[in-house]
Amino acid sequence: MRILIIGANGTIGRKVTEELSKKNEIIKVGKTSGDLQVDIADSSSIKEMFEKSGKVDAIVCIAGEAKWDDFENLAEEDFYIGIKSKLMGQVNLVRIGRDYLNQGGSFTLTTGILADHPVDKTTSAAMVNGGIHSFVKAVSLELEDGIRINAVSADLVEDAKDKYEDYFPGHTPVPMNKVVDGYKKSVLGKLNGEIIRVLA
Amino acid sequence: MRILIIGANGTIGRKVTEELSKKNEIIKVGKTSGDLQVDIADSSSIKEMFEKSGKVDAIVCIAGEAKWDDFENLAEEDFYIGIKSKLMGQVNLVRIGRDYLNQGGSFTLTTGILADHPVDKTTSAAMVNGGIHSFVKAVSLELEDGIRINAVSADLVEDAKDKYEDYFPGHTPVPMNKVVDGYKKSVLGKLNGEIIRVLA
Repeated sequence: MRILIIGANGTIGRKVTEELSKKNEIIKVGKTSGDLQVDIADSSSIKEMFEKSGKVDAIVCIAGEAKWDDFENLAEEDFYIGIKSKLMGQVNLVRIGRDYLNQGGSFTLTTGILADHPVDKTTSAAMVNGGIHSFVKAVSLELEDGIRINAVSADLVEDAKDKYEDYFPGHTPVPMNKVVDGYKKSVLGKLNGEIIRVLA
Repeated sequence: MRILIIGANGTIGRKVTEELSKKNEIIKVGKTSGDLQVDIADSSSIKEMFEKSGKVDAIVCIAGEAKWDDFENLAEEDFYIGIKSKLMGQVNLVRIGRDYLNQGGSFTLTTGILADHPVDKTTSAAMVNGGIHSFVKAVSLELEDGIRINAVSADLVEDAKDKYEDYFPGHTPVPMNKVVDGYKKSVLGKLNGEIIRVLA
């Protein structure tokens, strides 16, 4: 299987890439690193990436930003950081990527625990994640040629514990192998339109 | 209680307004009708509305658009119709409206069944509704001065049956009194950070 992984060098991405590369051909994509580069907030950059990659069997996105801050500090423009990157970046990936997926291919998007269980300072990040969840359910009704789509929504992941644990009091970090299994379930399984929630 | 209702003349809004006006002072807001006018897709218009209304005890929003079409027909810009109107319109209403709510006041936003159970042609509309659900949960953790926020998410409503039933096969229309009760639960009750789901 030929799998394109956006964010292949990130905290989660590198573990997913390591595992999936054992039995598949991986095209690693990063903002500045990897075999190809993309800025997912820019749909012309997404189009260019696919022109270079050609057709693939699975598109995995483990990328996208949103601004974290107290609600009272977030200006309207701050919400648009997450909207343009993590939300519409992933929507555009599906809009454009459909044409570069082989029959029976799949999309795997990434959200996170905040959609269901937000914490302090995450009004923008939670909103974006929740939007993707509903988008995934909706678009799964319309994709053709056997193309599937799912989102992986993990709790605080073990490898990001040091950086984020203060934001997630009481959230038990998820072992990386369980996180990777969430992506395997989507890419290698038959699920469609599912939010794959990964908790410790 | 002094209640500002945006979309007071809409399908749901007029029934909510009729019921709440029995025991409360209502400021009716519409795009072109009502005591005051607002374009919720424009944050300066929201600010002007509140400057005219002054402080209130409850802000109810039953307004906001999103484009319905086949996913393959939706351009990137089409998604931004819903993002600017129903999604960021309601987020901006909370951002700006906080300063115009009395202590212990409340916000009641409107989403819909699509967030959880999308139907054909609703990739954009579902996305927007799901985003608001997670936003409501997140912002409820941060609002101060006893201010509450909830979203009402109804299935196909009885008064919109003729217009929308073909889009919602098998969805039993919700009687309007149940829909109105959802809004009463939010405005007059003590709920906070809840998605009030109203089904037939």
